[in-house]
Amino acid sequence: MKLALIGFGRVGRAFARLLHAQRAAYPFRITGILTARHGAAVDERGLDPDPVLRLPSPSLEEFLDRSKAEVMVEVTPLDPLTGEPAISHIRAAFARRMHVVTANKGPIAHAWQALKREAEAAGVQFRFEATVMDGAPVFNLVRYSLPAVRILGFTGVLNSTTTVVIEAMERGCTLEEGVEQARRLGITEADARYDLDGWDAAAKTAALANVLMDANVTPLQIPTKGIARLTPERLAELNRKGKTVRLVSRARRTARGISLRVRAEVLPRTDPLALARGTSNLLLLRTDLMRTVGVLSLEPGVEQTAYGLFSDVVAIAREA
Amino acid sequence: MKLALIGFGRVGRAFARLLHAQRAAYPFRITGILTARHGAAVDERGLDPDPVLRLPSPSLEEFLDRSKAEVMVEVTPLDPLTGEPAISHIRAAFARRMHVVTANKGPIAHAWQALKREAEAAGVQFRFEATVMDGAPVFNLVRYSLPAVRILGFTGVLNSTTTVVIEAMERGCTLEEGVEQARRLGITEADARYDLDGWDAAAKTAALANVLMDANVTPLQIPTKGIARLTPERLAELNRKGKTVRLVSRARRTARGISLRVRAEVLPRTDPLALARGTSNLLLLRTDLMRTVGVLSLEPGVEQTAYGLFSDVVAIAREA
Repeated sequence: MKLALIGFGRVGRAFARLLHAQRAAYPFRITGILTARHGAAVDERGLDPDPVLRLPSPSLEEFLDRSKAEVMVEVTPLDPLTGEPAISHIRAAFARRMHVVTANKGPIAHAWQALKREAEAAGVQFRFEATVMDGAPVFNLVRYSLPAVRILGFTGVLNSTTTVVIEAMERGCTLEEGVEQARRLGITEADARYDLDGWDAAAKTAALANVLMDANVTPLQIPTKGIARLTPERLAELNRKGKTVRLVSRARRTARGISLRVRAEVLPRTDPLALARGTSNLLLLRTDLMRTVGVLSLEPGVEQTAYGLFSDVVAIAREA
Repeated sequence: MKLALIGFGRVGRAFARLLHAQRAAYPFRITGILTARHGAAVDERGLDPDPVLRLPSPSLEEFLDRSKAEVMVEVTPLDPLTGEPAISHIRAAFARRMHVVTANKGPIAHAWQALKREAEAAGVQFRFEATVMDGAPVFNLVRYSLPAVRILGFTGVLNSTTTVVIEAMERGCTLEEGVEQARRLGITEADARYDLDGWDAAAKTAALANVLMDANVTPLQIPTKGIARLTPERLAELNRKGKTVRLVSRARRTARGISLRVRAEVLPRTDPLALARGTSNLLLLRTDLMRTVGVLSLEPGVEQTAYGLFSDVVAIAREA
């Protein structure tokens, strides 16, 4: 199966390395890589995992046509306010009857209903396992392993930058030093305020609510309060009481629709949500038939996000 | 799709109720129920969820033939020392080219390799999601959502009777009173010593290791130490240090093979494993490509075990 990559940053490169390592069992090849500023490469026979990119880049449309790919893999950076340009990229792929796999949560946070319909109309698959839990199974878990289940709500710690910053402040660092530590782990959005102010978590919350609960919301509609006002002093005081803070996403069905929020919450250290340490993520899905099922991903990194993309490509190969 | 139930205790009855509730979307019908002591019922048009059983019971073979079922659902009680008679029941179904779904961990703890081969030779499916985590996705999670992943090891709190007993003793009850509380929750094996001495956990550990790591072991080969010697005094002393105890299953690949053990372990209250409270289960899978992925099931009951069976039947209907 032939793949075209849009974006070639840390996730894209990790994905190319993973495909190379798995090539004996999974004969996928990357036939094109397009970046916004560093050029592009196209070779229908397959590019090697560290290809030479050349300027100028063609247009997205021209690139997709030349790649002859069956799957577009979208790994451009998130714009949590609009979901663009990723949404337009995805539509260009659908127009060419290409399946789409993305690690960018913007599209499903902003335009899930429309993109779902458009994928169905084009007869292609649209997958996004890497968007919310850095590759740990969430969407595929519900789709394949929880048949007939209705998701009544969820609670999660989905943004790891804030956890890393909180833990750094608990060790006495400033917020800025904490952000620097998160940046060195390579987990921070290009603009760290997106993490600290809760935009990344709000985008993930909207993505989950849209796909799993038909919420039809955008991140802009989710009441969101980040950790920007948290101080080392406040955390030290909480610590003495056996408590900590996490940026928590919550969703539940109410009589008036789906209630969503993202907020820095004070938690006992023995709370399941406090289990999310370092870059770890935790999501608890409240269901009708299976009560509460949780997924935990311990200390994922960029290789795990790449694995999320890979697991989607494998699913497409299996079903297409 | 027609189903034959072997056993009709709490899990079997919950399963029959669940099928009845889901009948509009999932048109499965139970065409036979066989019990060891309470008789049997067969009706090819489908039994109602609370059927009248009549004595004498036919032989298993005669019953399966008369049921005309496509799937045998095995929910007899566990014998952790041998896996029988469930293993023989399963072989009788394979001989009739029936798929098998079981909630009994004995067969995969004692005879996974052989049963897997026999199912393949018969061209039928053999499924057992309800055996280890009371219905939460584990085997199906790995099968459908973690392609190419190698399981390097696991850690889990898989027996909930011991957790309930430990928590009761932490409240000052005796071990016997704790067992009584677990029994009232309906989670205890027919013989509570199987839980307290770690046999149930050892059977689950062998089941996971056999299926996910090709371990080819039986529960008898796993060094197992239960909670029978634990006292309320010892737990109170640990509690003052912020610690608790759980019956923990551990597996890891070593140079000399797969190392397995089940043991009551002292844990800080902030340890992920200490998160398993009440009937909750937690399993952390250590993998090559996805680091550590955990599955958590909060306070499952008999309805969730029934759901595990149901999810397997749905998977068979989808693939058969």
